Amino acid sequence: MKEQHGIGSGSILRRKESGALEYAHDDLTIEEPLAIRIGRKAVATTLRTPGQDDELAAGFLLSEAIVRHRGEIAKISTHRDNIVIVDLAAGVKAKLGSARRFGTISSSCGICGKTSIEAIRQNFPAVRSTTIRIEIKTLLALPDLLRKHQGDFARTGGIHAAGIFDLYGERQIVREDIGRHNAVDKAIGRAFLDGLLPLDQHLLLVSGRASFEIVQKALAAGVPIIAAVSAPSTLAVNFARESNQTLIGFLRPPSFNIYSHIERLILEREL
Amino acid sequence: MKEQHGIGSGSILRRKESGALEYAHDDLTIEEPLAIRIGRKAVATTLRTPGQDDELAAGFLLSEAIVRHRGEIAKISTHRDNIVIVDLAAGVKAKLGSARRFGTISSSCGICGKTSIEAIRQNFPAVRSTTIRIEIKTLLALPDLLRKHQGDFARTGGIHAAGIFDLYGERQIVREDIGRHNAVDKAIGRAFLDGLLPLDQHLLLVSGRASFEIVQKALAAGVPIIAAVSAPSTLAVNFARESNQTLIGFLRPPSFNIYSHIERLILEREL
Repeated sequence: MKEQHGIGSGSILRRKESGALEYAHDDLTIEEPLAIRIGRKAVATTLRTPGQDDELAAGFLLSEAIVRHRGEIAKISTHRDNIVIVDLAAGVKAKLGSARRFGTISSSCGICGKTSIEAIRQNFPAVRSTTIRIEIKTLLALPDLLRKHQGDFARTGGIHAAGIFDLYGERQIVREDIGRHNAVDKAIGRAFLDGLLPLDQHLLLVSGRASFEIVQKALAAGVPIIAAVSAPSTLAVNFARESNQTLIGFLRPPSFNIYSHIERLILEREL
Repeated sequence: MKEQHGIGSGSILRRKESGALEYAHDDLTIEEPLAIRIGRKAVATTLRTPGQDDELAAGFLLSEAIVRHRGEIAKISTHRDNIVIVDLAAGVKAKLGSARRFGTISSSCGICGKTSIEAIRQNFPAVRSTTIRIEIKTLLALPDLLRKHQGDFARTGGIHAAGIFDLYGERQIVREDIGRHNAVDKAIGRAFLDGLLPLDQHLLLVSGRASFEIVQKALAAGVPIIAAVSAPSTLAVNFARESNQTLIGFLRPPSFNIYSHIERLILEREL
């Protein structure tokens, strides 16, 4: 199977609608493991689509609360064999104690006995902004903007996209990955590395569903509005309500649902 | 938000196709963390849809190669606060050394420096059977069989399904979860607990995409044929080829693609 730019291709056998069988050429999303290290210490391994590994590592460390400020990262270097190494600035100590969920084989369990949401939330502060608002027409334009960046998706049907937009749909960071979480990590990682946090005038749009982790990653970057093309989960909704985040689901123009903090939408008419 | 049987419901604001806004009642898939323990030792935490936690734990331990035989598990008990505890049989020691991917904060890194696939594969033996075959008409009937068990999906659009079928489409274990991996763990976990492994006369069907981990979980249960409604990844295809597994993608009757080991399909005509 040949591979480049996140896409692999090879020969397959296809049954067509007519019932006829033919050999065909097919494009697939590349999936490979990435080991994320801080210096010599392994932190996590994720299955991802290669590319922007530095952003993925930065976004992952941010959303797991292992680093909190841009200045804590001195250098990120990508290596062969799917390894990315983050060097912290002198004197900075990684907050690995918070990395409870992926360092779970341990005698000191950070999870057992705690109530459920407490066990996995990273205690990012709730969004403070109450004044920012978005026009419905801007919101409805975003899925098309996301798709314009998504050449791969149409070809393979197997890649997720995440986009960060400002409230006028202008500043755009769009990233793709076979894993929804990775696409979000890459997008917020880019913004983090560029010193743009908190993204308190921005919206995160994901091409699929909104799980708890997506909403928490948005919170790590200070994002007040999250929109998803598909369904949110109960935990995502409850978390967004508590975190003062607006959560929009099933964003399929001209329709959408709002699950929390509707005050950030400029409604066409009063209800 | 009220919750029962994997579904939560609550009030939302909906923009309809007409552009009108209305308050509505909406169903969502429940997502909660589950801590999996072996005795007093925390092994992993997964975000899952509650229900069949015993099957989820069994399937997870099997597919991570922490246990390999039914007799190694003495008892599985589910507890409040989203904890499931697996007690191993007397004298059995959990193979936690193989649990490299989620026990990653450690000075003894099992990943760094290894080549990519080696780092994450669990070294299950390849499927041995070369004689089992499936009719195309049986294969084409399976997505409908899966959907018949999927009451939740239609309502929320936010839940994955995994089904194990025999080669006549008869024996069926269908499980749902907000996480695709969890749905597969529940299905193979049920079969494992019932002493049905290896499932060498069976097929695994998943409602979404086929990633590497799905194909490896199938291999852990000895499943020779995997079918997915959406796309596989490159790593899933390469793994299936090496493991002597037939991998079918985009199974959307009357069409589908075959990515590996086509010899297990009874083709209507010779090519």
